[in-house]
Amino acid sequence: MDFDAMFNAQLNALKEEGNYRIFAELERQCGSFPKAKSYDDDAPDEVTVWCSNDYLGMGQNDDIRQVMKDAIDLCGTGAGGTRNISGTNHYHVELEKELADLHGKEDALLFTSGYVSNWAALSTLGARLPDAVILSDELNHASMIEGMRHSRARKVIWKHNDPEDLDRKLAALPANAPKIVAFESVYSMDGDICPMKEIIEVAEKHGAMTYLDEVHAVGLYGPRGGGVSEREGLADRITLIEGTLGKAYGCMGGYVTGSAAMCDFIRSFASGFIFTTALPPAVAAAAKASVAHLKQSQIERQMQRERVAYLRNQLDKQGIPHLDNPSHIIPVMIKDPVKCRMLADILMRDWGIYVQPINYPTVPKGTERLRFTPGPLHNEADIDHLVEALSVLWKQCAIAHAVA
Amino acid sequence: MDFDAMFNAQLNALKEEGNYRIFAELERQCGSFPKAKSYDDDAPDEVTVWCSNDYLGMGQNDDIRQVMKDAIDLCGTGAGGTRNISGTNHYHVELEKELADLHGKEDALLFTSGYVSNWAALSTLGARLPDAVILSDELNHASMIEGMRHSRARKVIWKHNDPEDLDRKLAALPANAPKIVAFESVYSMDGDICPMKEIIEVAEKHGAMTYLDEVHAVGLYGPRGGGVSEREGLADRITLIEGTLGKAYGCMGGYVTGSAAMCDFIRSFASGFIFTTALPPAVAAAAKASVAHLKQSQIERQMQRERVAYLRNQLDKQGIPHLDNPSHIIPVMIKDPVKCRMLADILMRDWGIYVQPINYPTVPKGTERLRFTPGPLHNEADIDHLVEALSVLWKQCAIAHAVA
Repeated sequence: MDFDAMFNAQLNALKEEGNYRIFAELERQCGSFPKAKSYDDDAPDEVTVWCSNDYLGMGQNDDIRQVMKDAIDLCGTGAGGTRNISGTNHYHVELEKELADLHGKEDALLFTSGYVSNWAALSTLGARLPDAVILSDELNHASMIEGMRHSRARKVIWKHNDPEDLDRKLAALPANAPKIVAFESVYSMDGDICPMKEIIEVAEKHGAMTYLDEVHAVGLYGPRGGGVSEREGLADRITLIEGTLGKAYGCMGGYVTGSAAMCDFIRSFASGFIFTTALPPAVAAAAKASVAHLKQSQIERQMQRERVAYLRNQLDKQGIPHLDNPSHIIPVMIKDPVKCRMLADILMRDWGIYVQPINYPTVPKGTERLRFTPGPLHNEADIDHLVEALSVLWKQCAIAHAVA
Repeated sequence: MDFDAMFNAQLNALKEEGNYRIFAELERQCGSFPKAKSYDDDAPDEVTVWCSNDYLGMGQNDDIRQVMKDAIDLCGTGAGGTRNISGTNHYHVELEKELADLHGKEDALLFTSGYVSNWAALSTLGARLPDAVILSDELNHASMIEGMRHSRARKVIWKHNDPEDLDRKLAALPANAPKIVAFESVYSMDGDICPMKEIIEVAEKHGAMTYLDEVHAVGLYGPRGGGVSEREGLADRITLIEGTLGKAYGCMGGYVTGSAAMCDFIRSFASGFIFTTALPPAVAAAAKASVAHLKQSQIERQMQRERVAYLRNQLDKQGIPHLDNPSHIIPVMIKDPVKCRMLADILMRDWGIYVQPINYPTVPKGTERLRFTPGPLHNEADIDHLVEALSVLWKQCAIAHAVA
């Protein structure tokens, strides 16, 4: 049987619809972020990264790097085992304490990634709570969707950010079924933020557990970086807060926080937690230092907000349409996969601006976009250069301007 | 609804059957491995680790540590994005080339862990090849089982390491269905090695793809560490070889290797690859250096083999029964979860010997065991100390000796 022919047929279909992905090969360079070295033949040697999830530049922070290097000298490069079989290091335990404190919860549990934390936690809760029903916001992330799917629990999808629809759907369920309301604070592709208080109130009314993904919010929102739930003073009313160490904290890994019993339950039953090598102790050490830093320091968050506001303002001045939202994410809608890729290619080649085209399956077909994430290390000249490039391209490509 | 009560009820059941897991909190210390600092109150301050999957001590190799630290200074602590959205660094690309070369394949694809590589690759192959049937060895790892389950493809289980049973089961399937034969080289809990040539011949006879997990073999077997498939000269007849960077290579991450079309297919469709932050570039750099080192150097493998043989020999002399197998893994069967935990506790407390009790769900109930993994850095005194401890305990606990 010719398996390669079967693979190629499906790859060709992707290429024909414009959704085949080409990765930009970069080399991040300490001290020059958001600039990076490009290894792509069609790009300048140095490009400015405009689509990083290292939102605050913490991935190159001098102190965090030093902590990570010191931990390597103390412990080595890897954990050497699963958490159960020789892989639990002191740094993992310390990091879990730090994360529990960040969200004001009894305990926390560390995973190898945010993806795995959502997948493993939701699949375990859904599978092991008898007759559980998961109520999922329709725009939840792939990792949550796969976790729910894997659990084989009944799933009910509610309209995006619509507490009234959630209320109706909860009311239609058996009163004694365990219910899990799963949603995100900041939705990463549109940058909108959920009506958290209203969702919590509806969930509480029906005795449902709340499962909140804060991966695009931790480090960024709240006076200690505890996310939107901290900013709104609602963390204590959320049953489970999930987050990542791979975005604003600049490292790698994911986690859940909540009651000690819940963390112990997931620790004890989640296949994706049990059967995998623990994070390198040095990564845990760096992540802990990054979380601790952003509990104290406001400057990164403040500068990010200024940059975001400045970019929005400059785009408005040039009549370049972007999605209105209250977050740090600025999507410029293109609505066509081929044009989206073409614009990104021109920005990279002619302007040294790297923004990955966001196509299906990351966003629905017909909503393709360029997604900009300005951070504290983008200066005004970087932003002016980006806006100039977009402005020129908008005129060249005759893409409809927003109404001024 | 009292969710904590539901969690606690299931945790209490685990505790009653003796399967509740307590993690040993360690601090790996460079230069002294397999010794580690213990943070547990009931253990000596320093213990000897006897159950690490850092099989060759590469996790503390001076050169690999230096490579990782240098990469942190160059690139920082994290990748800053998914592979598609700004997270592909030069080190990832270089590591994928190194891994393809290791197994003599066209291409390789990197994942955040071995667990994720199995889960994502098998779920994608099973779900996207129309009418695919996966034929799974009955003792395959949890990550493969979850991947097959997630794919929702038809699954057929064949008897462990039994090519004749596989042959019968393949023969019973429709000739034109795509078939995937999934198996491991070294099974980590019993330490047995599959009859690879016979399995391949059966698969080839039926036109099936072969999917081989070599996570407990890469770095350890074959003249370049390419695993059992390299040692047996069979790598070119395997369709997909999966491996890990978190065990013998001492770092973190997993991978698959195979044809360029297959790697591109998984890269393009696997949710668990697409929607997750890439490995830190520094981890990729360290892993690449570790793979390259073990392509050249034989001393670690040779010393490991000597230590394994010496421990087996000493156990035999004392009449302590252990599973006979041709690998580096030495299981001592206890066959009871409570006794297994008790023995491990005594070894830790009184002898400073750390070996995690292996209970359900890692192994079937009734096959609980202590699993020893001697490495090049265990010296003869360490081994003699272990055998003395076991010998004393065997007498005290009146556990049946093997027939001499």
